[in-house]
Amino acid sequence: MLKREQLKNITPQEFRSLVREGKWTEDTTEICSGYSQANVVIVPKEYAFDFFLFCQRNPRPCPVIDVTEPGDPFPRLMASGADLRMDIPKYRIFKNGEIVDEPTDILDYWRDDLVGFLLGCSKSFVWALKSANISWRRYGAYQTSIACRSAGRFRGNMAVTVRSFSNSNDAIRAIQISSRHTFMHGPPIHIGDWREIGIKELGKPDPFNPYRPILEPPKPGEVIMYWGCGITPQMVAIESKIPFMITHAPAHMFITDKFVEELSVI
Amino acid sequence: MLKREQLKNITPQEFRSLVREGKWTEDTTEICSGYSQANVVIVPKEYAFDFFLFCQRNPRPCPVIDVTEPGDPFPRLMASGADLRMDIPKYRIFKNGEIVDEPTDILDYWRDDLVGFLLGCSKSFVWALKSANISWRRYGAYQTSIACRSAGRFRGNMAVTVRSFSNSNDAIRAIQISSRHTFMHGPPIHIGDWREIGIKELGKPDPFNPYRPILEPPKPGEVIMYWGCGITPQMVAIESKIPFMITHAPAHMFITDKFVEELSVI
Repeated sequence: MLKREQLKNITPQEFRSLVREGKWTEDTTEICSGYSQANVVIVPKEYAFDFFLFCQRNPRPCPVIDVTEPGDPFPRLMASGADLRMDIPKYRIFKNGEIVDEPTDILDYWRDDLVGFLLGCSKSFVWALKSANISWRRYGAYQTSIACRSAGRFRGNMAVTVRSFSNSNDAIRAIQISSRHTFMHGPPIHIGDWREIGIKELGKPDPFNPYRPILEPPKPGEVIMYWGCGITPQMVAIESKIPFMITHAPAHMFITDKFVEELSVI
Repeated sequence: MLKREQLKNITPQEFRSLVREGKWTEDTTEICSGYSQANVVIVPKEYAFDFFLFCQRNPRPCPVIDVTEPGDPFPRLMASGADLRMDIPKYRIFKNGEIVDEPTDILDYWRDDLVGFLLGCSKSFVWALKSANISWRRYGAYQTSIACRSAGRFRGNMAVTVRSFSNSNDAIRAIQISSRHTFMHGPPIHIGDWREIGIKELGKPDPFNPYRPILEPPKPGEVIMYWGCGITPQMVAIESKIPFMITHAPAHMFITDKFVEELSVI
């Protein structure tokens, strides 16, 4: 079995080949260091326009970096040669607002009318923060009470990732740096108390995405900031009872051929 | 008859009322100073997804700032209370790739399946350049030989606006400042010789948009830069023989309720 450490400095092409061969089905944290990772949303053409509109109206959680034409599984702008049907370690299949499967490829689910969307990912701007020598604690992803702007049949609340900074200098620099990365969620959408945006408790992971959170409450004096999160469409799929949608499984991202800095000037 | 000078410091709401009453049918240069102006493209729902895709793939000429739902003429993000059918001084109607009319409202052309797109406009970032005390000469808009990325039935070359700067310091600052305004075409797409991007002659206006250009050749030592232009969709409508599309007439823009700086952090 491959170790994560071995995947840290390989190319996205090499990583996607391993995924395609079924050799990696875990999350993509720290894999292909320096390359942009992406959230995946695949919907039928019938409501692809509505979803596009949803993204345009909610650019913080849903910054669009590539869209395929109906039936085309190849995300040509972000990774020529990649295949959205096989190159993601784990997927989620939503039907009528329920998760019905979490397969490691979607060949059996693919249809000629499907449109793929890639949305920028905070795993990418985190790399930019680290490069700038900023440190923080990550609280994982949470659902909030912030209503997204709706579009057609798509409506629901925003998901966020939460990070705490031990001093305001690092927090301010994190806003500056993330702002440069408009297509990786851009700047935070909130600073301060989590209860103001409907998060009941920090340090208790949200059941929707119980992925590697810190399991302790915030410390006094920490500056806590909240960024739009690309699992928002998954919450929307449930809330809006979307008939059919495929996404990546949380933290199991698509890895593009683009450097993080390359997409800062999209 | 109203004078342009009288319109410089009125609000967008006041200006749109005058347009709606038929009291202003000229271009919007220097009107509602400090507010963002926008290009307008209206297409049937049938190919609205394709046009959306075209914009996503060509963000320099086509930065999307608002999209309406089918049949809805109200651009709710950019100007609540505005009406895309009446609030633009002059429109262009394209049928099968030809300009068939240039009306001052589109009430007779409106249909329940039409989707409106607002695209950011360089008249807005020009305001930011002026605010930064940068001076330049404007060469107007030209067609280029740069192929846009196609999407569905939409294909064609890019249009640009051309500005020359008398020194490289102003040129560099213009790149910095326009880069902040991603949704007003962002940074230039080319620096230097116009012939490299298929413009035969500067100082002779392009027949497609013979609007207020400088009618003399460049001076030695000038730095000439080229920005994506929102009349690109009009060239595409002709090139691709789009069955039905409505746009603003060049330089006759929609004026939004948003300050220029407000949209720099969209």
